[in-house]
Formats: sequence, structure tokens, C-alpha cells
Amino acid sequence: MKQEIIDRINALRQQMKNAGITATIIPQTDPHQGEYLASHFQVRRFLSGFTGSAGTLVVTPAEALLWADSRYFIQAANQLEGTGIKLMKEGLPATPGIADYLVQNLVKGSVVGVDGWVFSVNETEALRNTLKAHGLELKVDADIIDAVWTDRPALPDAPAFIHENKYAGRDAADKINDILGNARMQGADAVFISALDEIAWALNIRSRDVNCNPVAISFLYISPKGSTLFILPEKINAEVADYLAKRNIAVAPYNSVAGFLAALPAEEKVLLVAARNSGASRAILGDRAIVTDISPVAMLKGCKNQAQIEGTREAMIKDGRALVGAFREIEETVAAGGRLTEIGVSEILTKYRSQQPLYFDMSFETIAGYGAHGAIVHYSATPETDVEISAENLLLIDSGAQYLDGTTDITRTISMGKTTAEQRRDFTLVMKGHIALGSQIYPEGTRGDQLDALARQFLWQNGLSYLHGTGHGVGHFLNVHEGPQSIRLNHVNTPLTPGMITSNEPGLYRENIHGIRCENLVLTVPAFTTEFGNFYRFETLTLFPFDLNLFDTTIMTDEEIKWVNDYHTMVREKLAPGLTGANLEWLNKKTQPLTR
Amino acid sequence: MKQEIIDRINALRQQMKNAGITATIIPQTDPHQGEYLASHFQVRRFLSGFTGSAGTLVVTPAEALLWADSRYFIQAANQLEGTGIKLMKEGLPATPGIADYLVQNLVKGSVVGVDGWVFSVNETEALRNTLKAHGLELKVDADIIDAVWTDRPALPDAPAFIHENKYAGRDAADKINDILGNARMQGADAVFISALDEIAWALNIRSRDVNCNPVAISFLYISPKGSTLFILPEKINAEVADYLAKRNIAVAPYNSVAGFLAALPAEEKVLLVAARNSGASRAILGDRAIVTDISPVAMLKGCKNQAQIEGTREAMIKDGRALVGAFREIEETVAAGGRLTEIGVSEILTKYRSQQPLYFDMSFETIAGYGAHGAIVHYSATPETDVEISAENLLLIDSGAQYLDGTTDITRTISMGKTTAEQRRDFTLVMKGHIALGSQIYPEGTRGDQLDALARQFLWQNGLSYLHGTGHGVGHFLNVHEGPQSIRLNHVNTPLTPGMITSNEPGLYRENIHGIRCENLVLTVPAFTTEFGNFYRFETLTLFPFDLNLFDTTIMTDEEIKWVNDYHTMVREKLAPGLTGANLEWLNKKTQPLTR
Repeated sequence: MKQEIIDRINALRQQMKNAGITATIIPQTDPHQGEYLASHFQVRRFLSGFTGSAGTLVVTPAEALLWADSRYFIQAANQLEGTGIKLMKEGLPATPGIADYLVQNLVKGSVVGVDGWVFSVNETEALRNTLKAHGLELKVDADIIDAVWTDRPALPDAPAFIHENKYAGRDAADKINDILGNARMQGADAVFISALDEIAWALNIRSRDVNCNPVAISFLYISPKGSTLFILPEKINAEVADYLAKRNIAVAPYNSVAGFLAALPAEEKVLLVAARNSGASRAILGDRAIVTDISPVAMLKGCKNQAQIEGTREAMIKDGRALVGAFREIEETVAAGGRLTEIGVSEILTKYRSQQPLYFDMSFETIAGYGAHGAIVHYSATPETDVEISAENLLLIDSGAQYLDGTTDITRTISMGKTTAEQRRDFTLVMKGHIALGSQIYPEGTRGDQLDALARQFLWQNGLSYLHGTGHGVGHFLNVHEGPQSIRLNHVNTPLTPGMITSNEPGLYRENIHGIRCENLVLTVPAFTTEFGNFYRFETLTLFPFDLNLFDTTIMTDEEIKWVNDYHTMVREKLAPGLTGANLEWLNKKTQPLTR
Repeated sequence: MKQEIIDRINALRQQMKNAGITATIIPQTDPHQGEYLASHFQVRRFLSGFTGSAGTLVVTPAEALLWADSRYFIQAANQLEGTGIKLMKEGLPATPGIADYLVQNLVKGSVVGVDGWVFSVNETEALRNTLKAHGLELKVDADIIDAVWTDRPALPDAPAFIHENKYAGRDAADKINDILGNARMQGADAVFISALDEIAWALNIRSRDVNCNPVAISFLYISPKGSTLFILPEKINAEVADYLAKRNIAVAPYNSVAGFLAALPAEEKVLLVAARNSGASRAILGDRAIVTDISPVAMLKGCKNQAQIEGTREAMIKDGRALVGAFREIEETVAAGGRLTEIGVSEILTKYRSQQPLYFDMSFETIAGYGAHGAIVHYSATPETDVEISAENLLLIDSGAQYLDGTTDITRTISMGKTTAEQRRDFTLVMKGHIALGSQIYPEGTRGDQLDALARQFLWQNGLSYLHGTGHGVGHFLNVHEGPQSIRLNHVNTPLTPGMITSNEPGLYRENIHGIRCENLVLTVPAFTTEFGNFYRFETLTLFPFDLNLFDTTIMTDEEIKWVNDYHTMVREKLAPGLTGANLEWLNKKTQPLTR
């Protein structure tokens, strides 16, 4: 492998030279500014051999460097060894930013060439300005990968299919009108959408183009005069073609999008979202672009309608019942002394979920981290790291599924043996935060960053913390991570609004010891209205017990114990009707009241 | 009065016409972007008759309008009655912003003329852009007030004096070096400071130019080649002149600042803070200006040094002892059936504080609001509104003092009779938030907006809320409101950093019934360091009991009761040594343990 990487980088350098480019930057994203990439777009992975889900490759005549964040310091160091690619540890004071590195290491007049489709409008602007201030030029039309990646995987061609209105709750034609209404308020006639989940939502179309994300790789141009979907033609069967045509949506080849944008009339004002459209599309549209920070789709998509909410409630019941079977099998296997590894845990979870009606896929790669592996926040077991589960330590399981009627995402941390005082205390401090956030009532207009500390307060009080966000938005039979809301340390612009589904997932990670995370999905619903205005609360959607053995009731209030017992009562009442025999018995045992 | 206002607006219209201006905007600020204004700068008050501390007057040929926020809806409506000035209620959906109003009501090509010294760089830019996009022009050199306000008060000429290093803790020469170091990091050679508290802090100079704010009206230009203070020459006596000269600071007339800036060499790069310098200074400096959002002074001033912290602790002891006398007299007067009004309460507070060593002034106009008046957040009793205090309702007292060794700001809500269940519940919900925030430990980097909800959580849970911020920074023998930190609903950029003094003041206001606010000043100090980093906590600086009669212990946790008792023990131990007789007895009674 190592020589292969060296050869690839050298081949890239040759193409750069041919194209008159001194340096290039290859980020981990696609022309849709996506977080999850089809293999066709895994350019950085192909060129560097580094498999992490984030990280950027930079190649100059003298050096090849990979910027990676702290999650990936160890993995990247291992995977880059012997490739000649230097690891740049993001976030350390000594590590320059990429633009700063280029400014310091290239001679004035040099050209930095990138594929402008994989940089957002914002990123392109910022990069261009920094380079320009130091006498460097940015070219955004450098298309040099295909010549290096000769066996590049094709774009996925799985069929697109219709997500029926009975699940989606609103017809695509109405959604297009809603989006155009939002665009008009920003002074635009039309909207160019690159984000795959926004397109899937807008058209009620799904596919299997990205692992765990049921989207179709495409661009969408929406205009009152008619819309155009840019997609591989072989993905559109007669039914879908008819469905789209009835809604005045033409289909055009995926690769024709640049030419289409270039040919738009000069007076057409097209809305682009600075973080979700590419610098390349901005460059092509020129004066026709109206660049905004506010997606005309995000709030519409984020606030679920009644059909989506009811579907998600159904999906949660199915998911909870599947997990009863799965967790019981995991526990019984370990109790019986059978061999079970982290990968085995993943397989059990998939097995039970895939038996449920309307199951489509998992919603992300299952994280099953035993003991110290649980402390690696983005751990995903590989054959090399896979370890056997035993009763000694904690097992953290973060998983979810895509059902046609909803998307799930749940984390439970369990022990299958005697627990230590530290395990119980850590778990309970995390749960106290989970409960505090989940029970909080908040006035209309409250943003997730305002509530974030409620989930952290007990950890902080004890000198503990976690660095990831506390909650992300969740799609409806769509990406498990979506905006516009989130609950986190950093600023958020969007208030928590009725209909939004958000995760509540505080955690605690003790390096080389154990990891704990407790995650439910919660729905923002109206609580009450007083002379002080409208107040909202969270309704818990996820239905599965927390491990009773891990609670330290000596540091819990009566209200917290009541919260656990009320939640477990609800879980039992909702899941029991579909369970029988050993599964029902297991559920009853796991939802017994917690007492002091 | 009403005809006077009509005449003034008409006179202003005549001057506008003479100057070729269609409309003008008169905000409630001064050339120092100040919140508290010398009478010389109370232009909006003079022209409109409205006395609120915020609100903006707009005059066009057809209309005169005053934008005021919800704090002032009632007061403004009363004061504007009969003047022909229309009240524009800020924050209501139907109320346009000022720029929007002008855009909608002026014909294209019209000129909006303002005094560019009373608009920040940011405000000027935003206003210019909005107007320009709609074919309107902004002139920032409209100087039309003096011709209307013929008996305008002169600039204050009280002497400037030196704030000794034993209080300030760092010599002005060193501070100037610190500021220049910060400016260099932003690429600037020099710094132009307009903010009065930043100038006072930088030079260790004080005066009495603004009510309750011990500042000297001036501008300061800092450069490695020497600095210049622009100030009325009569304010500088020989001692201060010598003190400044020794630190390479020249003195120049206040009104010479514009000419000085205009004459700076073309290559001099001058740092301007977008929110704290004027659009006029930006226009004069042109390409010489480096505009930043980060004040080179704010963090230096915000993080108090050891001398300032120790001085503030001393000031708190004096202030607490003064308040023992004052509150005792208030209570005894009411108990004896004597006549005592809100203004009388203010006078008692000033009397006791002014007897303390190093007393200089009050730090703001005392808010003493009885009953329903307590629910008016920025209430300040006038002879017209003044009411007698009795034992029926709650009395809210928010007050503070300037001592040479520190600034205080404290709010207590007390009852002098039988309390109702609603009063006790409301008070206790506010106190629970005060205690939760005050006891929270937080990691390095935490901002005030992250902690704000801790103070609100119990109110929100009960459908209650308050709309003001929970905490503001407090100066050292300087403005009682300062940045850069704050604890509030909206975004804050600055983390709470050791040495910062911040208020902790949740409240609850039931219109026409009562108002409650509980305020202590707290100091950010290191708590401990763990494997998860550095953690900070709040040390409570303010020393005065909360009213024991107002606690509803049935909704308090044991920890909360312990917090109150520990705090009262500390208050007693620190204040008692300077008290005797009835005052000591009163303190002992007021700091008895709270029990269930």
C-alpha cells in the first residue's frame, strides 16, 4: 500500500505541473458539501490512504501533508507511515492553518489550484482572500483527479424511488412552492440546491447513493418556471420520471449542471447558501447569485410535520422492540461465556432491526466500543481493533436505523457484570445531565447553545467534561445528522422550534478506561403559554431502558429517580404489546423501578 | 413643555433644510459611544422631552418619531403626548427598523444627515449600505444641533485627577505598552480610543464628567512615538500635566481631535474598534484605519489585577456595613409607621455610603421600586411617581457606589411585613437560579451565554422568565457596566476569565404586582485542574444578607439551603468586626440559619 500512495502523490504532482498548478488542496467532501461520501468522491482517501471521516490533503512540489483533528491523530499517524505524507495535527498551537501554510511555503505568484465544486462559497472566498493578500492566486477549475485515479469508482447508479406522501406528509409540489416563497423573501427568483438531503426532502425522492444516508446524488434547480433535477439518467425509472414530470421537474444529466447554470439568463437571480453551495457554482453564476447564510430549505425540513412525527413514533417502537431482542442476545451470549466481539455486536443489532417492517438500512455505522474503545468518540471496530466483550467493563453502543417512516439514533452504555463505584458515578453524572436537559422547559426563541450547559453542569462541577456537541438534528428517513438546530458549546443561530427532532447525548470519556454516552432523540413540542409567552418542552421519542445497574442513587434527587422510573414505565407500556416470552420478560426486568 | 418640544423640532427642521438634509437621526449616545451621557450630549432628551436612557429620535419633513424599547413604552407614551412625536415601539413585529422606515418614507435621492461622531463604525456602515441600496445618501458631517440648542450646557470642566497606582495596581505607562502590544498583533502602529472608561483605565485618570461614572470626557491617541490626550485644558492641573508628561502623553484641546487625526501621516496604521469608535473618525482616517471587533483594551481592563481585586473586597466590606445601617433605618422607619418614600430610600442609601472611607459617588442612580414599581425594570423614582413604602408589598433596591478602591452594585428585594405564598415562591425561584449560577464550576473557555440558562431554568420550568441579561461586567472605580464579558441570552464572544467581576442578577417582574431581583457581584477564580483541563468558579464578592422571610424552603434543596447559610455566615464574619450595637444585632438577626 505505501508505495502505491507514493506513486499516486507523484502522479498527482505530474498532473499539477501539466495544469500549471503549484499546490492543490483536497478536502474530505463532495460537490454537495456532504459529510458522508460515495466512494466516487473519496479522493482524499484514495490519494493518502487515510480513511478518517475528516481531514484535508495538501500537495506541493516539495511536500504532501494531511491536516487531521485530534480524533484522528493516532489513526492518521499509523495510516500515513511510510507514505511520505506529513501529519499536521489540527488544533495544536504549533500547527498552521492550511492557507497560512501555503502563504508561508509558496513563492509569490504561485497558483493554488482546487476543484471548486468541493469548496463551499464561504471557504472559497476565505481561501482566495488569504492567498491574494500574500500574492498567491487561487484557481477553482483544477480538474486533475480523473487522470490520476484511473480506476475511479463510477457514480452510484442505484434507482431513485419515491418516498410516499403518507410518510413524507407533504407533496413535493407544495414543498417547492414553500422553498420558492422563502427564496423570494431573500430577493431571489430561483434556488440552486446542492445538498443531497435537501434535494431528497424537497422532492420526496430517495436512493442508496451514500452509505446509511438514503439520498440520490444530484443537483436541483428550482424555479417558478419549472425545475430541473441533475442526476444520472439510469437512476430514474419510468415511474419516477412520470412523478417528476407531473410536478414540472425536468431531468437532466448530472454532469450537465455547470453548463445549465452558465446558460441561465442574466436577469435570473439564483439563491445560493454560502455554506451549502460550492464556490464553483458561485463563480459560474456570477452576478446572478444571491448568496445567503439562511437555507430556504433547512427550517422547512427541520420542523417535522404530523405525518413525519407519527411515523417517527412508530419507528421508535419498532426500533425499541428490535433492541430488546438484540441487547438480550448480547447479554445472554456474554453471560453464557460465548465469544462475542464488537463487530459481532454490530451484526446482532443489524439482524434484529432488519426484521422490522419498513426497515431500509442502518442510519450510520454502529459504534460498539468495549472498555477503552468506548472512550474513542468516533470508534468504529475494524477486524484489527475488534475485541471480545466480557463482563469486566462498560460497553457503549451507538446505533440507529432508517425506516421508511423515520430515522432512529440511540446510545446506551451497559455493564454485563459487577459495576465499580467509578463506573456508576460517571454514568450517573452523565444521566443527571441527560435528565436535566430532557426535562427543561424553555421559552420560544431559545437556541440549543443556551441549553447545552444544562447537560454538562454536573460533570463540570466534578472537573469532568466532554468535547462533542450535546445534540444534533435528525432527519426523517434521511440523514441522521442534519441542521439547522443543534445543542452545543458553540454558537447556534436557530431556535429550537416545535417539530424539530434533536438528540440529547451527553457523555464522558476516560482515556484508556471507559466511555459513557446516553442518547435519546427528543421532539420539541409546545408546553404551555403564560403571560410570559410560549414555552416549549422536549417529548422523548426514543424507547429503550437505561441500564439500571449503572445508577448511583446516592447522588440523584428524588425528581431524577422519578424521571427514570416514569421513562421506563413509558418504555414498557409502548414496547410490551409487541413482545412475548423471553423478550417481554427481559423488558419487564429492565424497566423495574429504581429505588434508593 | 409640549409647545417647547414642538418649537425645537421645527427649529431642527429649519436647520436641516439649510444644510440640505431631508432626514436626521439622533441616537442616545455621545462621541464616545457611551451609555451614560453628560448633559452636553443629551441631544435626544433636549429635542424630544423623553428622558429614557435609550431611544432614538428621527425627524423628517413630515414626521418626528421616537424609537424606544419595551422598558420605555409607558414612559415614552406619557412624555411624548402632545409633542407631535410618534412613538415607535421597538421589538414589535409591526414596527420597522429606523433604516427601513427611512427607505420606505423618503424619495430616492434624499439625503439623510447625521452627526457621524455619535454613530459607531459598524452602525455607520450598516446605515450607509441600507440607504445606498435604496437610492438614499448618508452624510456623516451634519452638525446642526448647536444652532437649535442655543443654551446647550458646556462640556463639564471638573478637574481630572490621578487614580493612584496603589488602587489601580499597574502604572499607566505599562498599560500603554500592553495596549500597543495588542494593537501590533492586529497589524496597527497606533490606537485611537474614544471610550471614556477605556481612557480612564489606560491612564489611571478619573474625573466627574458623567453622573456616577468617574470618567473624563476625552479622546486618547496612543502611539509608540508618544500619546495625546484630547481634553478641555482647564481640566488638567499642574500635577496631572506633570504626571502625563512623564509618561510621554501630550495634552491637546478636546476639539482638536478631528484635525489631529486628519493630519496623521499616510503610513500610520491606526486601530479602531468597530463598536467603540465613531463612523466620523473612520471617515477621517480613511485607509489609515484598521477596523477590528476586538478592543485592545477590553480584556486588559476586564481582568482585574491583584490590587484591584483586594481593593474591591475592601469596598464590599465597607458597602455591606453601610447597607446594614441603611436597611436597618429603612425597616425601622416603616415599622415605626414613619413616612418613607422611594426617593427617601435612595437618600438613606447615599447617606450611609457617603460616610464610608474612600467613597466617591454612587455607581448609578439608585433603583428603589416599591410593589408594582419594582416590576418596571429601569424604574427610577421621580417626584411624580414617588410612593410611600409600607409593609404590604416587596421593595426592590438596586444600588451601588464608587469607592477609590472599587465599584459595587447590589440588588436586594425585601419585605417588611407578612409575606404571601406567591411572593415567597417567586423570590425563591429567582434565588434558586442565582445560587445555581453562582455555584457552577465551568471549564476554561466558557462564555457567559452558556451559563445564562442556569439562572433561568427554575423560572422557565414554571412558565416564568425575565428578559434582561443575567450578568454584566463591572469596572474598578469605573463604569458599573462594562464588557467584554456578560451573562445573557444572546451570543457573547468573550470567555469568563479569572479576574473578571460580573454581576449575577436574575429577576422576575409581574406587571402591576411586584418585581424581584437578587444581585451579587462575583469574581471568576481558578477552581481546579483535572485531566479535562482548567476549571473556574465564581467567588462571591458582595456581602449583604438576602431577606430570610422571603425563602420558601419547601421548594429548595438541602444544597441550596446550605448555600444561603454558608453565604450568610461569611457575610456576618466579614461585616461584624466593623459593626457595634444595634447594627451588629441587626446583622446577627438577618444572618441566622435558614431552616425547613
